Amino acid sequence: MKKIMNDPTHVVDEMLKGMVYCHSDLIKRIDGFEIIQRTADKTGKVAIISGGGSGHEPSHAGFVGKGMLSAAVCGPVFTSPTPDQILEAIKSADEGAGVFLVIKNYSGDVMNFEMAQEMAEMEDIQVASVIVDDDIAVEDSLYTQGKRGVAGTVLVHKILGNAAENGKSLTEIKELAEELVPNIKTIGLALTGATTPEGGRPSFTLNEEQIEYGVGIHGEPGYRTEKLQPSKDLAIELGEKLLADFDSNSDDKYGLLINGMGGTPLMELYVFANDVAELLSERGITVDFHKVGNYMTSIEMQGLSLTLIKLSDSNWLDALNAPTETIAW
Amino acid sequence: MKKIMNDPTHVVDEMLKGMVYCHSDLIKRIDGFEIIQRTADKTGKVAIISGGGSGHEPSHAGFVGKGMLSAAVCGPVFTSPTPDQILEAIKSADEGAGVFLVIKNYSGDVMNFEMAQEMAEMEDIQVASVIVDDDIAVEDSLYTQGKRGVAGTVLVHKILGNAAENGKSLTEIKELAEELVPNIKTIGLALTGATTPEGGRPSFTLNEEQIEYGVGIHGEPGYRTEKLQPSKDLAIELGEKLLADFDSNSDDKYGLLINGMGGTPLMELYVFANDVAELLSERGITVDFHKVGNYMTSIEMQGLSLTLIKLSDSNWLDALNAPTETIAW
Repeated sequence: MKKIMNDPTHVVDEMLKGMVYCHSDLIKRIDGFEIIQRTADKTGKVAIISGGGSGHEPSHAGFVGKGMLSAAVCGPVFTSPTPDQILEAIKSADEGAGVFLVIKNYSGDVMNFEMAQEMAEMEDIQVASVIVDDDIAVEDSLYTQGKRGVAGTVLVHKILGNAAENGKSLTEIKELAEELVPNIKTIGLALTGATTPEGGRPSFTLNEEQIEYGVGIHGEPGYRTEKLQPSKDLAIELGEKLLADFDSNSDDKYGLLINGMGGTPLMELYVFANDVAELLSERGITVDFHKVGNYMTSIEMQGLSLTLIKLSDSNWLDALNAPTETIAW
Repeated sequence: MKKIMNDPTHVVDEMLKGMVYCHSDLIKRIDGFEIIQRTADKTGKVAIISGGGSGHEPSHAGFVGKGMLSAAVCGPVFTSPTPDQILEAIKSADEGAGVFLVIKNYSGDVMNFEMAQEMAEMEDIQVASVIVDDDIAVEDSLYTQGKRGVAGTVLVHKILGNAAENGKSLTEIKELAEELVPNIKTIGLALTGATTPEGGRPSFTLNEEQIEYGVGIHGEPGYRTEKLQPSKDLAIELGEKLLADFDSNSDDKYGLLINGMGGTPLMELYVFANDVAELLSERGITVDFHKVGNYMTSIEMQGLSLTLIKLSDSNWLDALNAPTETIAW
C-alpha cells in the first residue's frame, strides 16, 4: 500500500482539517466532532444532512454549502459514524424548521442515523429522513439489506438542498424525497479494488485483464467478473441494465451522472461518456442534464458508475441546474 | 494495462466528443480539428489559447469558457499538437483584438506554438505568447530545455483569462504574463508511473515502497527516488524547496494549489494540505488563496504537486477569485 498519509488512524481527522484549511469560506468543523458544517448564515430553513463512512470524497463534505447540505457527518473510512456524532450534526445544523437526513442504504448507516433521529426527536427537534438505494446491480450485499446507496445520492443532495434553500417545509421535503429516490438508478464497474488506510490490502483483487460489473463503493461483490471489454461494450452493458429498470415512455427526459471511483482519469470517463451518448441517442432517450467526474468515490479504486435520473418533474431539472456554493458540485 | 477505452488511436477524438456531449452549454468542437472552443459570444476581446499533449485532463479543455481560455488545442496523448491545429485555433478564437498563447515549456510545444504564431501573423492576426516554466524540480529534462511547465499553468490561464475578460489589450496581457510567470513555482512527486493508451506500459516503475520526487507530468525523471515518507515529511520536502526558491519578505501573500496527478484520491490531497498548512503557518507565510484537486494530471499517475504563487499584485488574487464559466476551475 502506497498512500500519502501519516498515521492511518488519524486520516479522517487530518483530511477534515485540510478541507477546512482550504475552504474556510464555505465550511467549518464542529469542535471535537468529525462534522463539517456550512458557514452560510442560518435563515430558518430545513437543514439537509448526509454522511456515512469516509473514503468517498468529495462525498459528503464536498457538498456542504448553500443550496445543498447543511452538514456532513464523516465516519471512519468505510464505517458509519456513531449516533452521537449524527445527533451533534442534527443539533448544530437545525435552524428551527427541522432536519432532513439523507441516508445511503447500508445497515450500519441506517441503524445509526435512525437512532440519532430518535434521540433528536426526544430533544424536540423535528427530524425526517430518506434511505437512498439507487444501485440496481444486486439485491442484498455485504453490508446492505436490499439495494445499496451509491452515486445517485449526490443528485438527491442537490435536489433536496435546493428545495430547502427555497423554503420548503420538512413535510414537503420528505414527500419530494420519497418521489425522487425511485427515479434515480445507478450501476457501476471496477478495474481494481480499493485499499483502506488501516486495512492495507485491496478489498478484492482482479487480474490484469479482469473487471467486475456491479461492484459496490466499499468493494462489495458485483454480479459478474469478466475480461475487460471496450468502453463501447461497457456502456451497453451498464446502460441497457439501467434502461431496462426504468418504466420508460418516449417523451421521458433524463439526467446523467458518470461518476469516477477515484483512480480513473477523466480521459476514460469522457471516452465512456461518448459511448453512453451513442447508446442513449440510438434508443431515442432525451438527456437534459450531464455531469462527469469524481463524486462518490471508493478511495483509489479504478472504475466508474453510470447514474440516470428520470426527470419526472421539471422542477428537478431546475434544481439540478440551480446555483450552489460548495467545494465539489 | 487496464483502461476504459476503445481503439487507443482514437482516444483523444472520443474523449473530446464525450466532453462536448456533456458540456455543450460551455464548449464546442471545431469541425475536423482537435480544438475545443468556448460557446460564449465573441465581444472583441483578446483570446487566450492554451493546449499541448492530451493526458493532463481537465487541462486544458476543462478551462475553456468565459473568464479563462477561449480555446484549447488538444494534441495526441503526451504529444504536442501540430502547428496547423494551433493555427486553426488562433483563427477560430480571434475576436479582432489579438490572440495570446500560453505555452508550457516543452520543446515540441514551444516549436509548434511559435511556428503557428508566425503563420498567424502572416495572415495579419496579432499574436503574443508566454512560456510557462514553473516546475523548479530540475533544469533540462527529457523533453525540455530549462524548467518544465506544469500545474502552475492553470493559474496563468485564470489570471490572464480574467485580464482578457476585463478588456485588457494584447500588449497589457503580454506584460502581465511576463510579470506573473516568475511568481509561480511548482514541485511534484509520484507514487506510480503513467501509462499512455498507445504505449501500454508505465513510463517508469517504482517498487511498492518507493516514490520519486520532482517527477514531470509525462513521467520525466525527478531528482530523487526514495522510500515513501509520511505526508508531513513530503510536505516539508516540497514546501521547503519551493519557499527557498522564492525571494520572500514577511509581508508577502501567497496562493496555494495542491494538484492531484490523476490517480490519487482527494483524501490524500487533503491530508497533505493539512501538513502544508502546518509548515506554512510555522514559517509565518500568509496564504490568501487555496485550491485542491485534479487540475494538471498525468493520466492515472498517483502523486501530487504543490504550487505556490506569490501574490505580488493584489489584482492577481481578485483574478483568481473572479467568477468563470468552465468545466473544471
